[in-house]
Amino acid sequence: MSLIIEARLHAWHPWSHYCEPSEEGPHMDRYRIESGYQLRLADRDAGEKAAHPDLNKKHAGAVLARLNAQLAELQKLLWSDGSRALLLVLQAMDTGGKDGTIRGVFTGVNPQGVTVHGFGVPGPHEIEHDYLWRVHDKTPARGRIAVFNRSHYEDVLIVRVNELVPREVWHRRYEHIRNFEQMLTDEGTVLVKIMLHISKDEQKLRLQARVDNPAKHFKFSMGDLEARSKWDQYQRAYEDAITETSTEDAPWYVVPSDRKWYRNLVISRILIDTLTAMNLSYPTPELDPTSIVIE
Amino acid sequence: MSLIIEARLHAWHPWSHYCEPSEEGPHMDRYRIESGYQLRLADRDAGEKAAHPDLNKKHAGAVLARLNAQLAELQKLLWSDGSRALLLVLQAMDTGGKDGTIRGVFTGVNPQGVTVHGFGVPGPHEIEHDYLWRVHDKTPARGRIAVFNRSHYEDVLIVRVNELVPREVWHRRYEHIRNFEQMLTDEGTVLVKIMLHISKDEQKLRLQARVDNPAKHFKFSMGDLEARSKWDQYQRAYEDAITETSTEDAPWYVVPSDRKWYRNLVISRILIDTLTAMNLSYPTPELDPTSIVIE
Repeated sequence: MSLIIEARLHAWHPWSHYCEPSEEGPHMDRYRIESGYQLRLADRDAGEKAAHPDLNKKHAGAVLARLNAQLAELQKLLWSDGSRALLLVLQAMDTGGKDGTIRGVFTGVNPQGVTVHGFGVPGPHEIEHDYLWRVHDKTPARGRIAVFNRSHYEDVLIVRVNELVPREVWHRRYEHIRNFEQMLTDEGTVLVKIMLHISKDEQKLRLQARVDNPAKHFKFSMGDLEARSKWDQYQRAYEDAITETSTEDAPWYVVPSDRKWYRNLVISRILIDTLTAMNLSYPTPELDPTSIVIE
Repeated sequence: MSLIIEARLHAWHPWSHYCEPSEEGPHMDRYRIESGYQLRLADRDAGEKAAHPDLNKKHAGAVLARLNAQLAELQKLLWSDGSRALLLVLQAMDTGGKDGTIRGVFTGVNPQGVTVHGFGVPGPHEIEHDYLWRVHDKTPARGRIAVFNRSHYEDVLIVRVNELVPREVWHRRYEHIRNFEQMLTDEGTVLVKIMLHISKDEQKLRLQARVDNPAKHFKFSMGDLEARSKWDQYQRAYEDAITETSTEDAPWYVVPSDRKWYRNLVISRILIDTLTAMNLSYPTPELDPTSIVIE
């Protein structure tokens, strides 16, 4: 959090005592895919914890709680500022942890300011429109955070791997998506796109847990096994999609996600850094509060 | 209408007897703004009737009725084909005739297949989103025709003339709009954009009629006079918007509209030509109709 915002929070804001003093945390640029960079997922260790080498699961909870509180503060600031919006796009292979990320990162944030949208198989109305139609509809209003649990990227991922449209059709979508996201950015929405990167071994463990544990059966589908059988094709589709659409204004982050606690810390920190860089501010009072007497 | 479609209509379709034999009408390319062409509205006569030099108002009704019937046939074909959509964007100065155009051109077409959307001053929810948000939402589903009575172009017209946002903001919208419309095209929607071109003298007559005739008072607003006082700025804004966004896939037509009957004929013909060029077809029967016996 910038010193200016920090100072403002403490000076003006009744909730500011919930906010821990700003810790200048580790920079998450290491996970950001720069524009023009050719992503190779096989070169990236899904199990590393380089930003917190000395931390472990046991002690991560306390750190996450502090980050949650910071994020909650920043969400209030975004809301009060009212001029900008934040869109978080989450993509992952099955069992990658999208639901757990949302739960872990946004717990404690006012749900009035955060809306989560899942994009599954298009419904009968959705399929009658272009693939961005249902997604554009759910983009956040000014002052809000929207989280996309899956997104328009499925239209260059699952649609590509399963050959639901010809190559010509999905391939030109990279440009559509860049353009669409640039328009959103120009008009006031900040985008953060995150791939939860897990290893094939980790997926096996998580799928096995879903099979073995009756309480997790509801999460399992045979389709997961079919998608797993196409692991390499999906990894290549992710590499291409991220390489093609990671831009300065709408960057992708590839976050090591075999360790759930580490994934949550990294994503919280990315969101905090992003919101802080937006230079949000509380509206300037139009009057002198000391002149107001309420009898 | 192409001979192939014509033949199909007559061979397969119970409604086809409503359809007049195809008259190869005058080409409307004369009103199409080619990509890269620098539009100058002052060079274009709003009162001409070059495509029907010998026709007059009295005899235009019968011609329009035939075109209405053709358009109705083509709308059924678009619906039955089910793979494409048509979006008609109508823009004009005040009194330009958007409402009259919609009434004149679409009368007789099944309203289930045609939806008209008006885009006025953005409402409180709309203004919280990017300017394409409300417009994208109303784009037509496959098989449908949508008519936009005003559109996203107001965001580079009235917004520009009244300086509602800085130049930098409205100017980059040309590119957004080109990209947005290209995406719609790539995904199956055909766009036709029409400016109803009237002269300043004709506008004066029409405004005066609204003032003089109590039955037309509801159409009059003082804002019309304010906009009229900025006539030249609006004309320049239209010229730039059309020049910047007329593309091969999403062309603008500037239609002489001082004569309402001529305007309607030209626009009907443009729509008929556009739908005909889409090479729509009735779905191939999956069975041999002669093998079906209904007892």
